[in-house]
Amino acid sequence: MPFDPESLRFNEAGLIPAIAQDATSKDVLMLAWMNAESIARTLETGRVTYWSRSRQAFWVKGETSGHVQELVDFRYDCDADCLLVLVRQTGPACHTGRPNCFYRAVRDGETVELSAPV
Amino acid sequence: MPFDPESLRFNEAGLIPAIAQDATSKDVLMLAWMNAESIARTLETGRVTYWSRSRQAFWVKGETSGHVQELVDFRYDCDADCLLVLVRQTGPACHTGRPNCFYRAVRDGETVELSAPV
Repeated sequence: MPFDPESLRFNEAGLIPAIAQDATSKDVLMLAWMNAESIARTLETGRVTYWSRSRQAFWVKGETSGHVQELVDFRYDCDADCLLVLVRQTGPACHTGRPNCFYRAVRDGETVELSAPV
Repeated sequence: MPFDPESLRFNEAGLIPAIAQDATSKDVLMLAWMNAESIARTLETGRVTYWSRSRQAFWVKGETSGHVQELVDFRYDCDADCLLVLVRQTGPACHTGRPNCFYRAVRDGETVELSAPV
């Protein structure tokens, strides 16, 4: 069945959350947001492109840092209101220099850092 | 450092997205939402508890279906506006009966189903 981007469910701001997962390690790297046009650009270019809510602009991941995400597989969920992009990540995914954004864990009521900036 | 739930950034509805990942297979299972109280309950009980936006009620995952999620690790991201819960999943995570919610992929413009209900 041809993929119809119109079948996706965007929020009131026209956005849908996109989880990025490393296609090899399967680590969850980050969560960011896409609109219809950034989905089209991601599928067309193979370069993962989000919508920056803070800058209100397209955000080609790694365009400035070089830490690009090459699209390996594009998936969406049962409710069509969340995306999962499997990627080949160049360099750290997190702007803090860590491999991924989820570097803090809560254990026995304490926040523990799982990785340091590289 | 003691974990302060107040340091998390909730959206205007008081919610934060939570990605559930299978702690063993590392498959991304689903994305749902939590509020401050469902986070407290998840950490206290070890049973992953979301906030259902459609029902406007706490949603102890698997309470009805038996497809519970036992918390293995609770993480949050650099911006403190997204959670990642690593879980031990009993049965299928998706309400469609599939192992996870991300069973549709877009390949060459076509939607492909990656798994069937079990």
